[in-house]
Amino acid sequence: MRIAIDCMGGDFGLDVTVPASVNFANDYGDVDLLLVGVEPLIKSALNLIDGVPFNRVHIVHSDEVVTMSDTIDVALRKKKKSSMYIAVQEVKKCNADACISAGNTGAWMAISRYILKTLDGIDRPAIAAFLPIQNGGVTAMLDLGANVDCSANNLLQFSIMGTALLQAVEYIKDPSIGLLNVGSEVIKGNEIVKEASNLLLSSPLNFYGNIEGNDIFKGIVNVVVCDGFVGNIVLKSVEGIAKMFSGVVREEFQRNWFSLLTSFIANSTLKRLKNRLDNRRYNGASLLGLRGIVFKSHGSADVKSFYFALKRSREAIINNLLARTIDKLSQINQLLRS
Amino acid sequence: MRIAIDCMGGDFGLDVTVPASVNFANDYGDVDLLLVGVEPLIKSALNLIDGVPFNRVHIVHSDEVVTMSDTIDVALRKKKKSSMYIAVQEVKKCNADACISAGNTGAWMAISRYILKTLDGIDRPAIAAFLPIQNGGVTAMLDLGANVDCSANNLLQFSIMGTALLQAVEYIKDPSIGLLNVGSEVIKGNEIVKEASNLLLSSPLNFYGNIEGNDIFKGIVNVVVCDGFVGNIVLKSVEGIAKMFSGVVREEFQRNWFSLLTSFIANSTLKRLKNRLDNRRYNGASLLGLRGIVFKSHGSADVKSFYFALKRSREAIINNLLARTIDKLSQINQLLRS
Repeated sequence: MRIAIDCMGGDFGLDVTVPASVNFANDYGDVDLLLVGVEPLIKSALNLIDGVPFNRVHIVHSDEVVTMSDTIDVALRKKKKSSMYIAVQEVKKCNADACISAGNTGAWMAISRYILKTLDGIDRPAIAAFLPIQNGGVTAMLDLGANVDCSANNLLQFSIMGTALLQAVEYIKDPSIGLLNVGSEVIKGNEIVKEASNLLLSSPLNFYGNIEGNDIFKGIVNVVVCDGFVGNIVLKSVEGIAKMFSGVVREEFQRNWFSLLTSFIANSTLKRLKNRLDNRRYNGASLLGLRGIVFKSHGSADVKSFYFALKRSREAIINNLLARTIDKLSQINQLLRS
Repeated sequence: MRIAIDCMGGDFGLDVTVPASVNFANDYGDVDLLLVGVEPLIKSALNLIDGVPFNRVHIVHSDEVVTMSDTIDVALRKKKKSSMYIAVQEVKKCNADACISAGNTGAWMAISRYILKTLDGIDRPAIAAFLPIQNGGVTAMLDLGANVDCSANNLLQFSIMGTALLQAVEYIKDPSIGLLNVGSEVIKGNEIVKEASNLLLSSPLNFYGNIEGNDIFKGIVNVVVCDGFVGNIVLKSVEGIAKMFSGVVREEFQRNWFSLLTSFIANSTLKRLKNRLDNRRYNGASLLGLRGIVFKSHGSADVKSFYFALKRSREAIINNLLARTIDKLSQINQLLRS
């Protein structure tokens, strides 16, 4: 099993991607890693780390780097020797089973789509991630930003991809789908959502119906489907409030000498709390609908966070995410045609 | 100063609205309250409470009640004697300076709009509320669900109304406006948002630019503008994650005898924490763009929460929200014409 890693991407580049990759390779003996990036820079980064398993960690040199401010056009047409480009090509050439980047999302999506192409029956790929829910489990949500304008048919396709994702990675036999809306009644929402609701009702998918924003975290459905404009804003809003919330907890426990003292006494509880609220564990979004397994890490990921994204990529490979998605698509398309 | 209260609305109806109104009347000697609803039911609810200031708490009888499942058509045309209808009429007849309901949002908006009409220059009213931000202040956000499909021009009008709201209620001279989007760059977003961005750039408003979901809580702008579909989903998602977060804090402090013990020691810290994270303090949304001051409480509001919504209504009256909005509108419309 091999994962190609764009080591140059993300807010912290090699400082995060290389140590995380080495930790990951040390913890999982069944993976080989292809570190894609500027060779001398990767070598220096590796030199800083003890115990690199060099038999399973390989460097693939790239001359160029896609920056956060590069337009899709530049990334796609002017930088064909970038670490992003080469990481995806490794998947295309079957040298790797999956690839991952923490870089420019738009560029990563465009390059992946251009090189790998979409699956039969999928017009547009989507970005899916897992969110924590109240009972301690997870809910998948898509699209998180690949498509700002979506048709009802796109939303149906996202539902199919989400179903395959949950079946493959979470072993749920018939995942339920919720359509994100402003009310649970069928008459609610904008025209596209209403049309999508009808498409889903007449599909063989396990369609729960419309759900509202607060329902996401109740875990009443396994997959939350929405267009990329809404999904991206919701995801970032939720990240924002979670960050604020953690900050307030910290502030209150450091407010004065007494609260600071109690924080020492409550140390184990606060640690457990911090761990449960640690969103780094949920890092690693899938780019679904492509002819290859492609992952995206949060740009601001630290070493631990990037490590979790690598873990997700490995799980996707082990669970045959791609083959299962293709299966599910052909199954559902057959049912839709008959 | 008089506030007309639809006492029949909300998940808990009279059990919440009546005690909250009495507490409010007792705390604020400068307001008279019109309790609108089925008279014998209001009387029984008042009988359960000691110390009602009857000189300032008046009952206005209504025969009908708009339920949560009533369609807008039923509420608007078939129930002209509902407590909602009569509460708004009290404002129209200048018997009250503001009205408030915790009932069916769609019906409340439709009735208010039908009876009061929109202000000159406003095509559609919007729902605005305040959200807590990191530094302890607030940011206003609109639209939160009145309009699921918006034009760029609607978004411009929301920005004008948001500006007037912040000037009136938060005393901010030139409030900054952020347009909620999937990226901060001008090229990002769907077509409507891009067009709205151009309208805002050429307006005399203090337009900050595009902001992302996580920016809402950083307080980088005073007013966050978006369409009602996105706004409603974001608001409810944020409520959902906040609830989950509070639940996790509670759970961890009640996990075992040791953590329970530390929760007693950390009691004052936890209390302060709870108070800061208490979203009831932010209850009370304004229906902006109408020829009258109309407020909406969360349907699930408890007594404390409904009290806070009443407080917001009082502040809006004291600060001449309506006159200021009209002023601001004519000012900006003059500038836009010249």
